[in-house]
Amino acid sequence: MTKTITVLPGDGIGPEVTESAVRVLRSVLEKSRIDVRFVEKKIGGAAIDAYGTPLPQETIDQCKNSDALLLGAVGGPKWNEKSMKRRPEQGLLGIRKAMGLFANLRPVETFQALVDASPIKRSFVENVDFVIVRELTGGLYFGRPSERRGPNQEQVVDTLAYSRQEIQRVVEKAFRLAMKRRKKVTSIDKANVLESSRMWREIVDLTAERYPEIAVNHQLVDSAAMQLITNPSQFDVLVTENMFGDILSDEASVITGSLGMMPSASLNADKVGLYEPAHGSAPDIAGQGKANPLATILSAALLLRYSLEMECEASQIERAVHDVLDHGYRTYDLQTAQQNEKTVKTEEMTDRVI
Amino acid sequence: MTKTITVLPGDGIGPEVTESAVRVLRSVLEKSRIDVRFVEKKIGGAAIDAYGTPLPQETIDQCKNSDALLLGAVGGPKWNEKSMKRRPEQGLLGIRKAMGLFANLRPVETFQALVDASPIKRSFVENVDFVIVRELTGGLYFGRPSERRGPNQEQVVDTLAYSRQEIQRVVEKAFRLAMKRRKKVTSIDKANVLESSRMWREIVDLTAERYPEIAVNHQLVDSAAMQLITNPSQFDVLVTENMFGDILSDEASVITGSLGMMPSASLNADKVGLYEPAHGSAPDIAGQGKANPLATILSAALLLRYSLEMECEASQIERAVHDVLDHGYRTYDLQTAQQNEKTVKTEEMTDRVI
Ligand SMILES: CC(C)[C@H](C(=O)O)[C@@H](O)C(=O)O
Ligand SMILES: CC(C)[C@H](C(=O)O)[C@@H](O)C(=O)O
Repeated sequence: MTKTITVLPGDGIGPEVTESAVRVLRSVLEKSRIDVRFVEKKIGGAAIDAYGTPLPQETIDQCKNSDALLLGAVGGPKWNEKSMKRRPEQGLLGIRKAMGLFANLRPVETFQALVDASPIKRSFVENVDFVIVRELTGGLYFGRPSERRGPNQEQVVDTLAYSRQEIQRVVEKAFRLAMKRRKKVTSIDKANVLESSRMWREIVDLTAERYPEIAVNHQLVDSAAMQLITNPSQFDVLVTENMFGDILSDEASVITGSLGMMPSASLNADKVGLYEPAHGSAPDIAGQGKANPLATILSAALLLRYSLEMECEASQIERAVHDVLDHGYRTYDLQTAQQNEKTVKTEEMTDRVI
Repeated sequence: MTKTITVLPGDGIGPEVTESAVRVLRSVLEKSRIDVRFVEKKIGGAAIDAYGTPLPQETIDQCKNSDALLLGAVGGPKWNEKSMKRRPEQGLLGIRKAMGLFANLRPVETFQALVDASPIKRSFVENVDFVIVRELTGGLYFGRPSERRGPNQEQVVDTLAYSRQEIQRVVEKAFRLAMKRRKKVTSIDKANVLESSRMWREIVDLTAERYPEIAVNHQLVDSAAMQLITNPSQFDVLVTENMFGDILSDEASVITGSLGMMPSASLNADKVGLYEPAHGSAPDIAGQGKANPLATILSAALLLRYSLEMECEASQIERAVHDVLDHGYRTYDLQTAQQNEKTVKTEEMTDRVI
C-alpha cells in the first residue's frame, strides 16, 4: 500500500521544521508495512517568489492527489508590503478552501516538564487536556460581500455567512471526537448578539439529542475568553466558528507555555488532512537552527492518527516528545533557566525524538 | 449648577451595586459646589417585567436629558427563555445606540493587594496599566443584514459594517487618551483577512501622522489574545472594533484577578457617558450582600472624570478603593485565604470606601 504525503514547507522556519517532522515520520514508517512517498511543493511567499502566486495550480493538483498534507508556515516581512496584491496567507486560506478542510483541531495539553514555563499559575494549568474544534472554511473568512462601498468608498462590510450544513458537519465532528474522549462538548458563540450564533446553538442542541451520553454546554465567546485562563481544566472538546476559533485557539496556546508546542490538524469529509504547527514562520530566527520542531513533529503524529489510521505510531511519537522534555532537552524558545535544562538545536531535538 | 445622573439599576445585583456607587458619589459631591440630582429608571429584565420592553421610551427620554448614566447590570435566567422575543441585553445594546456611545473604555490596572488573586504569575501582571478602547455602536453588533435566508432558512448571515467616520472617531478618542498617558497606541485588527480591518489600519495610520509623539503599532487579534496574557505590561492604549473589543476586554479582566474590580465608561461625542461595571448581573448571589460593589464604585469615579470633569474627586475615590484593599478588606469574590483578609458584605465595603 502506497500513501502520498505532500510536504508544503512554506517560508521562514517552515522548511526546517517540516524537515524534522519528515525525518521523524520516515523513522516511524520504516518499521511499518505502509509505503509512503513524500512530495514537496511550494506555498506562501516561496510560491510567490517562484510562480507569482501564493497557491500555484500545481500545488493544488498535487494536494488533491495526496493522502495527507504537512505544512510548515507561511509569511514574512518580505511579502508584507501593503502594495502587494498577493499575500502568503492567501495560500493558506486557499488550500483550506480548495481541500474543503472545514474542521481545524487544536489539542491543548499540559506538558508536565513545561508547566512552569506557562505565564499561568501551576494550579490552573496542571490538568489541562482539551481540543478546540474550529470551523475553518466559512464565517467572516470567506463570506461575501467583503468590500468598500459608497461614492467615496467610505463604507466597508465583511460578511459572516454560514449554511446549516456547514455548521452541522463541524459540530458533528466535535461530538464524534468527544465520544472518544471525556464526552463533554462546550459550544462557543455570541447568541445574545448574532443570528448566526443562534442558528449555531440550535444545531448544537439538535445534535446533542443524538448523543445523549455527551454533556453539552454553551458559553458566550467573551466569557469563554476568560474561562480559558481562569478554569481551563473544565474543557474537553470546544467547538466554535472560524473567527472565534482563531482568537480562542491562539489564546489557549499560552496555557501550555509555548506556541512552539502546539500542533494542529485540519480535516475534510474524507480522511485527507492538513497538518501544521500553530506557530508562524518566525523569519527572525530562520536558518539558525533555533526553531522548535516539536509542534510540527506533534502535527505529524496527528497526521498518522487521522489520515493514515496509525494510532499506535502516533502515540509513539507523542510519548517520545514527552520523554525528551522530561529528560530536560529544550529548544531556545523553551528555556526557563531551570536546573538540568539542556538547550539543543532543531536538529539535535529531532534526533532525540527519533 | 445642577447636574442630572440617571441611575439604571437593571437586574440581579445591579440594584445593590448601583446603590453603593450612588452612596459614594453623594458623599463626594456633598463637599463640592456641584448640585447633583439622581433619577432612577428601569432597563433590562426589570423593564420587561414592568413595561414589556427592555428599553422603555421613558428611560430613553430621561437618559437624553442627563449629564451621565450609571448602570448596574442586565439579564438573568428569568428572561433567558428561547421563546422570549425581548431579551434584557437588547436594553443595553439599545441605550448604547440611542445615546451614540461609540467608545467603550475599560481600564485594566493591577491592584497591588490583589496581585496574587490573578491566575497569572505575579511577574507578568505586576505593572499592568492599560486602557482598552472598544468601538461600541458598529460592526457585527448592528450591521444589516442579520438574518436567515434561502427557501428553508438554511443560510444565515451577520454583517460587519463600518463607515470611515465611525472608525475615525473612535481611533481619535484612543489617540487623545494616549496623549494623556504613556503615548502608546496598539491597534488590533485582522487585516490579513478582513477588508474592514484593512480600512481600520489605514485610518489608524492616517491618524498617527497627526500625532507624531505617539508610538503606534498594529497587532492581529489572534496574536493580541496571546500577548494580553504573556506580555500585558507592553500596552498603554489598545483600540479595536466592537466584537474583538468584547472578547479582548473580557479576557483582559483575568489579569486583575477579578471581574468584580473592572469599571467601564462608554462615551459619545458630547460629555455624556454611560458608566457600568464590566461584570454581569450575577443573579445567583443577588440580594445576599455578597456582591462586590467596587467595579461600580470605580465606574462612578470614571463618571466624575469624564462627564463631570471632577478629576480630583475621581482619583479620591480610586485611592480610597486601593486603600481599603490594602487594609485587607475583601468581598466574597476576592477571598484568597490569605492572612489579614477581612471578608465584608457589600454595605460594609461601601462604608469603608466612603
Ligand atoms: C494566517 C491567518 C490567515 C490564519 C488564520 O487566521 O486562520 C492563522 O492565524 C491561523 O490561525 O492559521
Ligand atoms: C451583554 C452583551 C450584549 C454585551 C456585549 O457583548 O457588548 C456584554 O458582553 C458587554 O461587553 O457589555
